[in-house]
Amino acid sequence: MRDLNEHTLTDEVISRFENSTTPRAKQISEALVRHLHAFVREIEPTQTEWEQAIDFLTRTGHMCSDKRQEFILLSDALGVSMLVDAINHRMPEGVTESTVFGPFYVDSAAEFESGSDITEGIEGMRMLITGTVSDQHGQPIPNATVDLWQSDTEGFYDVQRLDTLALRGRFHSDAEGKFSCWSVRPSAYPIPNDGPVGQMLELQGRHPYRPAHVHFMIGADGYETLVTHVFAAGDKYLDSDVVFGVKNSLIRDFVVHETGTAPDGTEMAEPYAYLHYDFRLKKAGA
Amino acid sequence: MRDLNEHTLTDEVISRFENSTTPRAKQISEALVRHLHAFVREIEPTQTEWEQAIDFLTRTGHMCSDKRQEFILLSDALGVSMLVDAINHRMPEGVTESTVFGPFYVDSAAEFESGSDITEGIEGMRMLITGTVSDQHGQPIPNATVDLWQSDTEGFYDVQRLDTLALRGRFHSDAEGKFSCWSVRPSAYPIPNDGPVGQMLELQGRHPYRPAHVHFMIGADGYETLVTHVFAAGDKYLDSDVVFGVKNSLIRDFVVHETGTAPDGTEMAEPYAYLHYDFRLKKAGA
Repeated sequence: MRDLNEHTLTDEVISRFENSTTPRAKQISEALVRHLHAFVREIEPTQTEWEQAIDFLTRTGHMCSDKRQEFILLSDALGVSMLVDAINHRMPEGVTESTVFGPFYVDSAAEFESGSDITEGIEGMRMLITGTVSDQHGQPIPNATVDLWQSDTEGFYDVQRLDTLALRGRFHSDAEGKFSCWSVRPSAYPIPNDGPVGQMLELQGRHPYRPAHVHFMIGADGYETLVTHVFAAGDKYLDSDVVFGVKNSLIRDFVVHETGTAPDGTEMAEPYAYLHYDFRLKKAGA
Repeated sequence: MRDLNEHTLTDEVISRFENSTTPRAKQISEALVRHLHAFVREIEPTQTEWEQAIDFLTRTGHMCSDKRQEFILLSDALGVSMLVDAINHRMPEGVTESTVFGPFYVDSAAEFESGSDITEGIEGMRMLITGTVSDQHGQPIPNATVDLWQSDTEGFYDVQRLDTLALRGRFHSDAEGKFSCWSVRPSAYPIPNDGPVGQMLELQGRHPYRPAHVHFMIGADGYETLVTHVFAAGDKYLDSDVVFGVKNSLIRDFVVHETGTAPDGTEMAEPYAYLHYDFRLKKAGA
């Protein structure tokens, strides 16, 4: 078809998806074009604005590396990640809520024995993390895989400024579903804002901060993998998390203790923090 | 706000744009989030599909270089470029129609005297291109800047396989609004389909071809810059151009002549093609 105009173009584009290789490819392509064209019709971008959009996407792509995922940041900052999360995790009562995955997970993190220190020489107040993994009804799940990762006390992840991995590791729950480790107390932090997403936030008049949290990804045979955080109670960004990820059920005190015997028996000569969370997984297919 | 769910999230995201630095940034951000979230709600992507989308955008970004613009290809192949073009060029009667810019324009192309040969040693049937530039009423426009660029006879642009520029150049119309050059007869070609956009077309069951054409960008003081193509009559892809760019008013015969005296006086010992187009520009602000 020729002589397409702003009124006839969308139908013609959609008609070209007739021979898509799968029904899902056709469905997604059609919906994408309908919504994308509706967006363009609503804002009527100038040619210059279209060029700026192409440039923004290009710079976002060029910012992506094995240590930085700017498109995930973009998805997070526009609320898309939390929307996809919400759609995919309509959780039954009693199961731990999920939140965004974030851009800082590293697949190759080391395995540790429960109770290990994962600070790798990083300074700052020590924090004991203990947790349990159980099913929806509180029945312990042994040998669950617990990945955790977090920022340091200044809000940076290892991959942002170290050549080595730190403050992340993979654990396994014991026969009673328990695991623990020693880390440092994380702090609130800005998402990386020296790239296109940072420029977007500035244009939108938004701060780039996330409240302090520890990431968890917990999987076990027969259960849906849980991707979530535990947030620090009292953090000033709990109500304005730049990626919209805070849920009340995921907030816990990161309790500061004076010197003495920590809950795992360690003798502490300096003050330390303590975080405990009981995770409950959803049965697969439930 | 905390505990956002699939029903409350969109409003919360939009509320964060309250302090945007410009009304336009606020308007675009709001519309983007509304349409993007509506798309996500409609297709309900799985986490894996979301990851595939992130990966698709990342690979599209990584494919972009100073010689390849994969995001423009994506915009073209989804009909977005033609929609933006249509919205920005609601042309009065008598003015040459516009079409997509495409990804192969090079800002640093050389200037040539009218009548020059721009083939730079490229083989294939010679083609004489002549044109006039005038206003809406046919009044010649002297000293208009005429940028033209095109593929070779096998459908490749210089930047796709040469280290030098060829088949592109910048000309100026003479006192009668005329310009001309010697090139080669371009052919239909697939848009570059060895990247993410090619994979998308395959998934959508679409061919990647564009009908043979020559690109023109024509500017003159006091007139809106015209970005357009002239398409070859009879090309088999005129009705299924992968980027939806064909308009009947932009189709001309690329007439093949036998040996003899060409319209510009050149003696041709071999058959050659001849393309003529009369461009009419819109007055700026009209």
